[in-house]
Formats: sequence, C-alpha cells, structure tokens
Amino acid sequence: MSELHPSAISINTINPNVKLMEYAVRGPLVIRAAEIEEELKHGVRKPFDEVIRANTGDCQAMGQAPITYIRQVLSLALRPELLEVVNCPSDIKERVRTLLNGCNGGSLGSYTGSLGIEFIRRYVQQFLGERDDVPSDYRDIILTTGATQGIKSILQLLKYERWKSNLFQIKISIFKTTAVPLVIKKTGIMVSVPQYPMYSATIVEQGMHLVSYFLEEETNWGLNINELKRAIDEAKEVCIPRAIVIINPGNPTGQILTRANMEEIIKFAYEENLVILADEVYQNNVYEDRIKFNSFKKVLVEMGEPYKNMALASFMSCSKGYTGECGLRGGLVEIFNFPADVKTMFYKSLSAQVCPNTVSQAAIFCLVNPPREGEPSYELFMEEKTKVLKSLKERAQLVHEVFNSFEGFSCTTIQGAMYAFPQFKLPPKVIELANERGMPPDQFYAFELLENTGVCIVPGSGFGQKPGTYHFRTTILPKIDKLKVMLEKIKSFHTDFIAKYR
Amino acid sequence: MSELHPSAISINTINPNVKLMEYAVRGPLVIRAAEIEEELKHGVRKPFDEVIRANTGDCQAMGQAPITYIRQVLSLALRPELLEVVNCPSDIKERVRTLLNGCNGGSLGSYTGSLGIEFIRRYVQQFLGERDDVPSDYRDIILTTGATQGIKSILQLLKYERWKSNLFQIKISIFKTTAVPLVIKKTGIMVSVPQYPMYSATIVEQGMHLVSYFLEEETNWGLNINELKRAIDEAKEVCIPRAIVIINPGNPTGQILTRANMEEIIKFAYEENLVILADEVYQNNVYEDRIKFNSFKKVLVEMGEPYKNMALASFMSCSKGYTGECGLRGGLVEIFNFPADVKTMFYKSLSAQVCPNTVSQAAIFCLVNPPREGEPSYELFMEEKTKVLKSLKERAQLVHEVFNSFEGFSCTTIQGAMYAFPQFKLPPKVIELANERGMPPDQFYAFELLENTGVCIVPGSGFGQKPGTYHFRTTILPKIDKLKVMLEKIKSFHTDFIAKYR
Repeated sequence: MSELHPSAISINTINPNVKLMEYAVRGPLVIRAAEIEEELKHGVRKPFDEVIRANTGDCQAMGQAPITYIRQVLSLALRPELLEVVNCPSDIKERVRTLLNGCNGGSLGSYTGSLGIEFIRRYVQQFLGERDDVPSDYRDIILTTGATQGIKSILQLLKYERWKSNLFQIKISIFKTTAVPLVIKKTGIMVSVPQYPMYSATIVEQGMHLVSYFLEEETNWGLNINELKRAIDEAKEVCIPRAIVIINPGNPTGQILTRANMEEIIKFAYEENLVILADEVYQNNVYEDRIKFNSFKKVLVEMGEPYKNMALASFMSCSKGYTGECGLRGGLVEIFNFPADVKTMFYKSLSAQVCPNTVSQAAIFCLVNPPREGEPSYELFMEEKTKVLKSLKERAQLVHEVFNSFEGFSCTTIQGAMYAFPQFKLPPKVIELANERGMPPDQFYAFELLENTGVCIVPGSGFGQKPGTYHFRTTILPKIDKLKVMLEKIKSFHTDFIAKYR
Repeated sequence: MSELHPSAISINTINPNVKLMEYAVRGPLVIRAAEIEEELKHGVRKPFDEVIRANTGDCQAMGQAPITYIRQVLSLALRPELLEVVNCPSDIKERVRTLLNGCNGGSLGSYTGSLGIEFIRRYVQQFLGERDDVPSDYRDIILTTGATQGIKSILQLLKYERWKSNLFQIKISIFKTTAVPLVIKKTGIMVSVPQYPMYSATIVEQGMHLVSYFLEEETNWGLNINELKRAIDEAKEVCIPRAIVIINPGNPTGQILTRANMEEIIKFAYEENLVILADEVYQNNVYEDRIKFNSFKKVLVEMGEPYKNMALASFMSCSKGYTGECGLRGGLVEIFNFPADVKTMFYKSLSAQVCPNTVSQAAIFCLVNPPREGEPSYELFMEEKTKVLKSLKERAQLVHEVFNSFEGFSCTTIQGAMYAFPQFKLPPKVIELANERGMPPDQFYAFELLENTGVCIVPGSGFGQKPGTYHFRTTILPKIDKLKVMLEKIKSFHTDFIAKYR
C-alpha cells in the first residue's frame, strides 16, 4: 500500500460516519458463512455438508417458489413480441398491455417519472384505500427501489441540525487555551431495541442521532409509553427528536401491535411533535387468525382530530409477504399530511435519483393488482398465495414450540413477519471468554454455532437487546424438512455448548 | 394546511441541503411538458400534436428497439419453467442457466451479495480487461442500481470536512456581541461546466462544495489545465478538494477527450492529490471512425509510475451505448488503487443498501457477455447493435450540420454520447424580459420553444455555461424522420423568435 499516492484517499480522510456505521445482517457472520461455503466447495471437511442461511429474510433463496402470476407478467412485459405467440391466460396479457401502455415508448427499457409510473401509483391508491377503508391519494404514493430506498430518502429529508445555545466553548488549562468545536444538536430518530439494523446504519451514516427505546419482551415486545418518554427526554439534551420508527409486524421480534398500543404511540408522537415512520413491510405476514394487521395510517385517521392530521410515512415492499421477490427490489412509500412545500422538496430530491427500476415497479403493479375472482389466473394465484402463507404459519408455530422446549430458551409467539428472536441464557464462562476476544457473548455463540453446524443466524447484539440478555434472530424460511434439521442442529449444539462451558 | 400538526414537519425544519439542490434534467420544463401532454390528451388545442421529449437520453422512449439477446435472457430468467418448452437459441438458454446458477436458490427473486453477484463481477473483470488491455480485478468491481447509485455512494464516501483553523469568530457591533458559527471546510468535488446536473445536485444534497471548472468550447470542450488550476486554487480557501469528475464522452457536450488531454488531467490530479471519478457511461457511443475511446484507467496505468498508483473510480451503465436499457437501472463501478481498509469501509456502507436489483445485474451480465462469434445469437445481435450505433452516428452528424446552418447557432462536432449542445445568440430584449421574469434567458427561450412547438429541451443554464453565452441540450435520439421534423420546428421557431425580439 505504500506505493499509493499519499492521502488522495485513505482511511483517515473518508467519511467518518461511514466508518462508524454497522449493519449486522450482512456483517462478519455472513462473510464467514460465505467463506465456509467456498471451503466446502473446495473439499474442506466440516462437521456439516451445507451452510443454512437463516440470517436474512430471503424467501426464494430458501426455496419459496415465485408466484406464477407475477413472473408471467414480468417475463412477457420484457418480451412483448411473445404476446401474440405464447399461450397464456388472457388476464396476464391484459396486465402486460396495461403495464406497457403506461411506459414511455411502450417499453420497460425507458425511464419513468421519478416517483414511479403514474398509473401504477393509482393502483396502489386503490389497494391502500381498500386495505384501510380510508382514502388514499396517488400523489402521496412513491414507488421506490425496495422499501430501503424510501426509508433512506425520508430520513435524509428529516435531517435538520441546530447549534446548541452555547455557541462555542473555550477550554483553558495550565499550558494552553483551546477552542473546542461547537456542539451541534443532531436530528434524533427514535428506533426500537431490538430493531432492524438498516435503521441504525442509515441514521449513523447520515450523521443523525439514534434515540433507542426498549421493547418490552414481557408484553410480547409491546411499546411501553413510559419507556418512550424516558428515551426521548434523555435524548433531548443532545438532539432534536424528529421521528419515531415503528416496525409492525416486528422485525426481528415478530409481534403485531395491538390497536390500543398503536393509539398510545400515536398520542405520544403527537405530544412530542414526531413524524411517524411506519415500517409495515410484513403486513401480509400475519399468522394468528384472531389478529388483524392495522396500518398506522388507518388507526391515526380513525382516531379523528387532532391525530388524523399528523404527518406519517408508511413503507411497503414486494420482498416479503407471499410474493417474496427480494431480488426485484420493489418498494413503495405512502406519505400522509406532508405540507405541499415539503412534498415539492422531497420529490425534487427523488428526481436526482432518476427513477426506480421498471421491473421492480411492475412487481408492485402485480402486488396491488392481483387476479380478481372470475379471471383465468385467479385460482392458481390463490392456491399459490394460500400455500405460501399457510406453510409460513406452520413454520412459525413449529419454531416457537421447539425453541421453548430448549433448556434455557424462551421465545415469544411469532404473530407475524418471518423471524424468531428467542432469548437464551449463557454461562458466565462464555461471557468471560467473549469479553477476552472482544466480541459480544451472543456473537461468540453465533460463530460457534456456524463453525459447528453450518447454521448462520444473527446474534441479538446486531439488533440490540436489554443489557445482560442474549438472543438471536433466525428466519423461519427454510423448508419444513430442512427447518426441522436446523432446529435439531441448534438443539444439539446448544446442549453441548452449555455442557462445555457450564 | 393550518390543520397540520405544527412543526412535526415543515419547510423550515427539513434538510436545508435538499432545499438548495437543483436537478434541471427533471426540472420545471419537464414538469410543464408532462402537463402539456395531459392537456393534449384532454383535447386542449395547441400549435402541435405531440410533445417531443428531447430532454433526456431515454433511448427506448424515443423508439430505439431493445436488443433481442438481452430481453430473451431476462425474460427467460424470470420464467425458467419455459426453458424446456420454448424454442430459442441454445446460447440464450446457456446464458439463462449460468445466470440462475449464480443466484441464491436459483432465482432472480433472491437477494444477492451487496456488491452484486460474484460471477457477473468476474465477467465484468474480463470485459474491462479486454477493453483496456490492462488487468482488472472483480474484487474491485461493484454492480449498482444505475451508474447514479455508484456515483452517489463514492461521493458520500469521500465526504470529509474539517474546521477552519480560526475555530470561532466573535462579531462585536455597537449594540451586541454575537458569536458566529465556526466555518467548516467542506469536501470539494471538481466538476466541469457544463456538467450533467446529477453531480451538482448530489454534491449540494450531501453538503459538499462544488468546484466548477469551465470546459473550453473553442477546443471542442477540452479541459484547460490553467483553468483547472484557477478553479482549485480559488476553491482551496473554502473547501478541501478531494476529487475531480470527468465525463468522457461528454454530457452534455459530446466531446471525446484526446489522450494528450487525459494525460494532462491525470498529472494535474496527481499534483493536487485528487481521486479521479471517470464518468464513462457513454463509452460505447463514439461516432468518429478515427477516434477511439480510452478509459482513464487505461491511460493512467500506461503512464506508469507514479500515476499508475493513483486512486480512481470509473462508472459504466447499461442505459446508454447500443443497449439503451435506461429503465432497468443497471450500472457498475470499478475502483482502482483504493487502500484495503477504505474498500472495507466502502463495502460496508454498500451492505446497508442491501443489494442491486437482480434484473439490472442480469442486464449488466448480458452487456459484458454478448454472443460470441459462432454462437447462434451472434448474427442477430451484431445486426441490431450495428444498426443502433450506425443510426446514432447518422443522427449525430445530421444534428450537427443542421444546427450550424441556423442563424446565430454554432454547434461543436458530436463525437460521442447522445446530445448536441449548440450555442446561440439571444437579442438584448430577450435577456431583459427573462430578467424581469426571474429566469435565465435560455430557460425563457426553452419555455417558449416548448409552448410553441412541443419540443422539450434543457436550457444550458441547467448544465452551466460561461456567463453571457447561451446553449441548450437536445438528445439526438428521436427517430430520423421525427428528428428532421424536430429540427425544422426548432429552426422556424428560432427564426420567428429572433424576429419577434430583435
């Protein structure tokens, strides 16, 4: 490296926020998992044959079949020449023609408006309106490259710093007088602990302040308003709290918030002047019959004055639910009660991101415009959709049951989303050893699990957890047979591990 | 708006950089063009039948046909069930199988590594190696969501601010003593004038400092080293210059830099410790037989010590060239001589963006792995590719000739890219009128052109130009017949306009 031109780019002269940020879901364990896969390919002997990637909600990578309807539409839209030739249901052809009519030059190869293709946004309007029984407006709906891009764009919009009232400080010691840089009050964003670490990563990357509030494991990961108040009051010293992120259904925690809890949260956000950022990407992953997913927008509107005028952004995706099209990166944001001049600025900032991928937009089109009863594709579509959701539900119940049968494990009900987040006890010796190696004890556990069984999970420390508690997140996505094998592997590893370090 | 919850989000409390940024390519003219299209649809009478969108390099929107090879691969990769059924060339099927083998779970619906699918990055390595006759390394190649995302990510990485040495200032006037916030030296990024305004937009959005250098229209938009020195020396007062952006082939200016000029630029960047950001997305759009595109990496390596050790990032896309797949948002970055620890940080920041769209990655796969001689798809592929490039060449020559025949117009040779950027004179009365309306004179001209002819171009002020000169950018993308009509419309508008305001 010594030959490098000095200082044009070096670790000391890059963005300090980039250096600070962390993203555990794609962190060191995942890197090691990939290395192990390579080693296996090259014949290195291990106590297992394959790596089971239970670290990300990557449905199709774990064998979930794509919904035929979606793939038929996308495939034909990319090759419209085949419309006249190929034998496929009339509603598919109709969808493809509608889609291409909405594209400039009739092609998915053209740029679209920066907010996405208008007619698709109108379908989203109808879809959200029907979901909530509350009106929606396509002019407030933006198609994005995955929900991630939408979340990042909204967070960037909210960035607003102020100087603290004491504009500068001078430190005088015996030997010298030093002027110390002024203190900036950063933008505060409230995020749960545990959380999906894309939030903490983005907040740090953008130079904002993460205001963490603990979820209550005892009340199935509910939000306790006293805890929210504690978190925001402490944070006000160093930041200007601007927004609260709520992930519902929960990631990594799998809870679905009760309506009563949502109302409390909305009142809290109202009192504290916070924009509500509702991460609702798992809205189609609900596994308890008696539970209904309510969007924050619906609850807020139904609460009436003054809450129905609160600013909110809600995020949705085609990566989750029964579609599971993670690789297509289709997402959408609905903003609500943003003032017109703010919207203008937001839309301007999106325009410099050019436009979302057309195929991802087409996937959202399919998601919000599924085959209707009576259409030729309806039966197959419903069969596939039901099958995926039924199987996820079975796996959610299985994982929950099995984890609770492990010594020292406790796992809350998986009401929604795609993950289990069990708590487990670790012997003092493990904690000591992990400290020596400079890693959190649950990361030590996760590495040992990976090296011994090939099972790749994400330690709770990557999502955050109450001090002194240990968790990990595993997806429930492996197919049922493999899932059973995986649970068996974790069980026997855990038993040995505890015996070894007791 | 009065009912809105006060201050949760308002124009006064959003990101000031978002308020400052501008992006002319999707600015007010384009918004007005869309309105006019709506008006035409609703039967409003205009002196024209359709809007001609010559404002963006949107190939397929202007009728360019997609390359069959690419669409066959993408379409089948989304519906692999058809591989056994459908009748298509064996090399297409082989590409689809290779592609899906490289995807987790064999599906485009799965997430990929954050840097893109590894085997595609290896194909890019081979492609770039052959292009430059200089080695490339897939570990330095990143697939991105359009070149735009890559550019934005690199710019963010380079953001590094310092306090100016005078750490604070106190202003004392007769009535009060005021402490004035400390002055920050922002990150300086050198960008040409004219430029592609995504650069200025992103630089402003990220709170960096735009260091503008003028291109020399007289030497076919070459870079004059004295001008680069002037620009950087003036900027050093207020910023830390970190990088120089060079767009080659030029956008909006259409030049291809000579090798001698590139060597001068590299030496300048070396002396000034700048990272070279080479925007080479138009590398396949070269219209003069005697001219060869050279990548900055090639020239820098061939210059030997000490230049071959300089840090560089080069950007490429499937939106331009003969592919023109703008909507698919496929891009790539090759970084070169970035220290290992910087790369680690950069890759970590990309991981929190999850991963680029798989279909866009597949499009890059096709771009760097076209049918080879002897393969069944080769002939059709070459026929289509040659046809597109030949036609673009004809249009480049036509536009150049015709503009130079207009009174008061001068247009440099369009050696590459997809645009003409003619200079034209405006009568003093126009300048006066435009000033009265608070808009640049060439924007006034562009609005008049749009309202009278339906032709939508981007005024030179959107890209930057020497004070007192006026330009506009038009694409050369309309099909030849429509292009002739468009040029005719501009000519007769221009004649009337000059007559009216003389």
